[in-house]
Amino acid sequence: MRPSGRAPDQLRPVILEPGIARHAEGSCLIRIGHTEVLCTASVEGKVPPFLRNTGQGWVTAEYGMLPRSTHTRTDREAARGRQSGRTQEIQRLIGRALRGVTDLKAMGEMTVTLDCDVLTADGGTRCAAITGAWVALHLAFERCRRMNILAANPLRDQVAAVSCGMFEGVPVLDLDYDEDSKAGADANFVLTGQGGIVEVQGTAEGAPFSEGDLAALLALARKGAAELFARQRVAAGLG
Amino acid sequence: MRPSGRAPDQLRPVILEPGIARHAEGSCLIRIGHTEVLCTASVEGKVPPFLRNTGQGWVTAEYGMLPRSTHTRTDREAARGRQSGRTQEIQRLIGRALRGVTDLKAMGEMTVTLDCDVLTADGGTRCAAITGAWVALHLAFERCRRMNILAANPLRDQVAAVSCGMFEGVPVLDLDYDEDSKAGADANFVLTGQGGIVEVQGTAEGAPFSEGDLAALLALARKGAAELFARQRVAAGLG
Amino acid sequence: MRPSGRAPDQLRPVILEPGIARHAEGSCLIRIGHTEVLCTASVEGKVPPFLRNTGQGWVTAEYGMLPRSTHTRTDREAARGRQSGRTQEIQRLIGRALRGVTDLKAMGEMTVTLDCDVLTADGGTRCAAITGAWVALHLAFERCRRMNILAANPLRDQVAAVSCGMFEGVPVLDLDYDEDSKAGADANFVLTGQGGIVEVQGTAEGAPFSEGDLAALLALARKGAAELFARQRVAAGLG
Amino acid sequence: MRPSGRAPDQLRPVILEPGIARHAEGSCLIRIGHTEVLCTASVEGKVPPFLRNTGQGWVTAEYGMLPRSTHTRTDREAARGRQSGRTQEIQRLIGRALRGVTDLKAMGEMTVTLDCDVLTADGGTRCAAITGAWVALHLAFERCRRMNILAANPLRDQVAAVSCGMFEGVPVLDLDYDEDSKAGADANFVLTGQGGIVEVQGTAEGAPFSEGDLAALLALARKGAAELFARQRVAAGLG
Amino acid sequence: MRPSGRAPDQLRPVILEPGIARHAEGSCLIRIGHTEVLCTASVEGKVPPFLRNTGQGWVTAEYGMLPRSTHTRTDREAARGRQSGRTQEIQRLIGRALRGVTDLKAMGEMTVTLDCDVLTADGGTRCAAITGAWVALHLAFERCRRMNILAANPLRDQVAAVSCGMFEGVPVLDLDYDEDSKAGADANFVLTGQGGIVEVQGTAEGAPFSEGDLAALLALARKGAAELFARQRVAAGLG
Amino acid sequence: MRPSGRAPDQLRPVILEPGIARHAEGSCLIRIGHTEVLCTASVEGKVPPFLRNTGQGWVTAEYGMLPRSTHTRTDREAARGRQSGRTQEIQRLIGRALRGVTDLKAMGEMTVTLDCDVLTADGGTRCAAITGAWVALHLAFERCRRMNILAANPLRDQVAAVSCGMFEGVPVLDLDYDEDSKAGADANFVLTGQGGIVEVQGTAEGAPFSEGDLAALLALARKGAAELFARQRVAAGLG
Repeated sequence: MRPSGRAPDQLRPVILEPGIARHAEGSCLIRIGHTEVLCTASVEGKVPPFLRNTGQGWVTAEYGMLPRSTHTRTDREAARGRQSGRTQEIQRLIGRALRGVTDLKAMGEMTVTLDCDVLTADGGTRCAAITGAWVALHLAFERCRRMNILAANPLRDQVAAVSCGMFEGVPVLDLDYDEDSKAGADANFVLTGQGGIVEVQGTAEGAPFSEGDLAALLALARKGAAELFARQRVAAGLG
Repeated sequence: MRPSGRAPDQLRPVILEPGIARHAEGSCLIRIGHTEVLCTASVEGKVPPFLRNTGQGWVTAEYGMLPRSTHTRTDREAARGRQSGRTQEIQRLIGRALRGVTDLKAMGEMTVTLDCDVLTADGGTRCAAITGAWVALHLAFERCRRMNILAANPLRDQVAAVSCGMFEGVPVLDLDYDEDSKAGADANFVLTGQGGIVEVQGTAEGAPFSEGDLAALLALARKGAAELFARQRVAAGLG
Repeated sequence: MRPSGRAPDQLRPVILEPGIARHAEGSCLIRIGHTEVLCTASVEGKVPPFLRNTGQGWVTAEYGMLPRSTHTRTDREAARGRQSGRTQEIQRLIGRALRGVTDLKAMGEMTVTLDCDVLTADGGTRCAAITGAWVALHLAFERCRRMNILAANPLRDQVAAVSCGMFEGVPVLDLDYDEDSKAGADANFVLTGQGGIVEVQGTAEGAPFSEGDLAALLALARKGAAELFARQRVAAGLG
Repeated sequence: MRPSGRAPDQLRPVILEPGIARHAEGSCLIRIGHTEVLCTASVEGKVPPFLRNTGQGWVTAEYGMLPRSTHTRTDREAARGRQSGRTQEIQRLIGRALRGVTDLKAMGEMTVTLDCDVLTADGGTRCAAITGAWVALHLAFERCRRMNILAANPLRDQVAAVSCGMFEGVPVLDLDYDEDSKAGADANFVLTGQGGIVEVQGTAEGAPFSEGDLAALLALARKGAAELFARQRVAAGLG
Repeated sequence: MRPSGRAPDQLRPVILEPGIARHAEGSCLIRIGHTEVLCTASVEGKVPPFLRNTGQGWVTAEYGMLPRSTHTRTDREAARGRQSGRTQEIQRLIGRALRGVTDLKAMGEMTVTLDCDVLTADGGTRCAAITGAWVALHLAFERCRRMNILAANPLRDQVAAVSCGMFEGVPVLDLDYDEDSKAGADANFVLTGQGGIVEVQGTAEGAPFSEGDLAALLALARKGAAELFARQRVAAGLG
Repeated sequence: MRPSGRAPDQLRPVILEPGIARHAEGSCLIRIGHTEVLCTASVEGKVPPFLRNTGQGWVTAEYGMLPRSTHTRTDREAARGRQSGRTQEIQRLIGRALRGVTDLKAMGEMTVTLDCDVLTADGGTRCAAITGAWVALHLAFERCRRMNILAANPLRDQVAAVSCGMFEGVPVLDLDYDEDSKAGADANFVLTGQGGIVEVQGTAEGAPFSEGDLAALLALARKGAAELFARQRVAAGLG
């Protein structure tokens, strides 16, 4: 029934390649189906003005798409001179998701910037970015720990994200681009390893959806996230 | 228990003043507690490039805050030369919410721009904007109908929004600024008169929240929305 | 003879509502005919770089129009990413006008920002902004005085502004939008309570005007300003 | 009494060099004292969108200062990425001044852009720009006439500008930079050859000025303008 | 002698991976030492305004660096809102280099945009971009040929680029980042398969260099380019 | 053979007017044929952030064209809100050229900004800018020396630039606009008084050029530069 031929509760193949960026303190290339996002974590020993002298750290994110990561070429945001509303919305989401599982006080006054750059886009790029960024962030914190910059890893839990949607009336897991453009509703769930919800963003594209639909999508998301958490642990060397 | 002294399921006082903007095709000033948002609907007989020659219309939104709508003065976005990520995120949300209940094909090739400008901010401005914008849009469509520009009003349903949150572990309805800044989780629900969900955006500010929390917040939102729908109908002359 | 039916030396009805903005240190909503401008005064305990360590304060202004304050919708300057030349010219004028009656040395190192936002435009918005901003500024200074931040109110005099023009060869007071667009010459006068001229800006739209015309327009302006000064005193609690 | 040693009603030495810009349709370098402004007129066979198919032409102006035209270096506006409010105000003034003596209907659908670039600034640059731009515009129109693009020169009159001010209580003509920075009031007058006023902009820098002051300044301006008109006629070959 | 331990005339290991970008009409990932640049060619059936109705095509380039391609994180140009002078200079160079071997007339009215995005930077990114972009462009043209959009491949020759420099007085081939930052002179050569020079850019970082130095650097560049041409042919399927 | 009628190795007439800008610490107007560039040197007693507390100075350049310096009017970069890639490339080149002959350590922590503004463009503006800027810089340094701000002039050598090109297969010196637009290759050489090369930028406009062409163009450049060096010495009072 799905254009992809997958079962409704079937994730696309997922590959996480940790440590791929030569210069970054932490990095991970995540591939989920054809979608590819390069996530790097950059550590800097200072914080934004609003946190100075608070003893607290900060985790922030930036998101971008290579111009030809998309089916037809997308204008380069640097050339247009501004980031789109969509880009800003996504990078704010990634930042909130990772801060949701980080003990900012335990970081001390340092900032980690998570750059999530889409090399190939085929649906679910913001979710892939969150899932891959967690690995990059974990590796960067571990590196700081080995260098005695941090006494312990400030991550309190894992966080991963997955999109689900109503496709021809049936709840399905992990929409690819083709399915996403035909879905009646689309929801992104950011979940923690302990089972908590960090963020939910559900949007009806056509007809409104029901409370029952929302529950069914969340159940699928939990199933998909379990697989993502397992792969994150392996990539982070926790497996 | 709440700083405002309200019961957990109690909305702030709501006042909708239709027709307040002299020049606009439709308008509504919404007051909910101290929050005040002026919503205007402007009709234009053309559509954005991607819709030309499709016979379909468009509804879009812009959002702004007067510099001193806030407790301390906020920089004017026009002077800074760019809209913040938050502003763009909100105006995209308002646009999706209203398009979710509009039959764009029935509009023909016209655009309605909903300007939602916050005169006073005390929490819940994006939800107030959606609720007020529906009235402005309805009035603008009615005006087009009376002028025979439209054969029927293209609105298929009402739409309203309300924020709920976990305050000291208790689900509460309609957060004001003071409560919002202390809430553990915060969710905005965009609901239709028929009971459907157009959009849900839930974010854990501190600890992640559970599926049960989400259900409890949604139940509160439905209660609050019922009151908002009633007031919209009166303001729109449907009461 | 005038489209508005007013006598040549007749001002539109004027209403000043002081204290209307909940969060601002001083505020005033001015209505003159259909024109409505919300003026707020925001106090900050620092000065721009060029005044640091001079012991002197600063008064500055920003001006904006809500997109649908105008007959047809005007693009939002924040969305376009720049303030128009007209906007910058007007906010510079407002700032000069208010500084012209303020003892900046007596302020000490504080800045008051006057935000003048047009809710409805029907001609004369820059003059209304100056007249209303004086009330907002006075109230903000009084508040600082009551809080012992200032020993005395640094305002040395009242200031108000009014536009006059040549309409079908006859000098008339207080042009509305309809008259302004047909006027042969248009002059804005910024006057003090003591009778001095702070600023005069006269422009011939069609044929040049004469020295006699200029004198006639100034006489009308004085008459209109007298009424505005009286209303300011009442709104400021000096009446 | 004046720092410059000039009599109160004495203009600085004025030199107009017509035809100085090799590529422009019309041009004039104006020197008044140490102030130098290069004015060029560029003709283009089309009009801005709001004038298309009206049969009417347009005259517009742009103004700039070379970074080291000033006593200490001023940032380059192109490098900062925006024109200052002062620049926009001045170029709008120059445009209005020249349109005030041009029969736009007689131009047909063409645009003349007047670029006024300050090579050396020593006070009065906006007035010098207007005075020089008239010569450049006249020469460009004459060139169009000789090429039979225009049947007649659409200029109906001369226009020139001069600044006057109150210096230590005495009205003086043509302020240089040193005098301007000490003047109590400063007024720019844009006058026509026939004696009409196209624009007057008077500002009190310190104490407000009186109606008598304004009249005295205007009388001085008329005297100065008479000399400028004579020099314009010579430079334009009308002498 | 070289920090890298390479012989003066020794290129770093070069790998070209053609066809790596799923959606692009042509693509090539080039690795030279640690430097990695992803080059994609995007075909569009229209040309910039200055070429409309000329029957001629256009080849243009854009260049970017991922924020953490560099040793320490570089600000994202999209977030800063402008491309740096260096970026613009490089993308103009890439465009000229590829146009130098393309028969634009034979393309017809189509545009190929070459996006060169640096995944890892370790010196020589602009040269790598040119060398990789040629492969991407060749593949895109071949694809158009197979689809009968083009009758023949409009590339007249190969083009590749390599940087050389004076390192401690000795001419060396293919500077890496470490060598580049210590080089006394640095020259980029863009050469064609036929032996012609398309572009040479030589800069003395410290002491000026001599005509003899320039000749020695060019000789090294020819040697390096020969190896790059051989690898391009293999990657392009011409081997 | 050349459109200009000049011999292949003949420079256009060159005039250097030192000290032409009233306010600048050093200045020079250079005329080469019809091309005119006004070069000013502005001294400031501080350095960019990356040089603070290093004891070293900085020399930087900015470049601009008056809108009607060109055959048809070019948009004003300040009005467009950004400098073009060409402008940035040129001002980076000018800065590098002058720094190449300056002992930055001997300057101490001061910055000299060289503003090169094109009054009339007829080919070779970037080369003229470099040649004229050297005189302005020399004069500014001499002034600092006379004021005991500098113990000695930090210029180690002269620097001048000239463009050469292949015109109908023949190497020619100093291309004017007409020749440049028809040249098959175009190279700018930045040379020192001692005979060294500071920068070479050669570009094939049509067919690639050969090593022999490059050598021939360099020989012409040396001949032209000798004449420029002589004129610089006279203008700088060293003659």
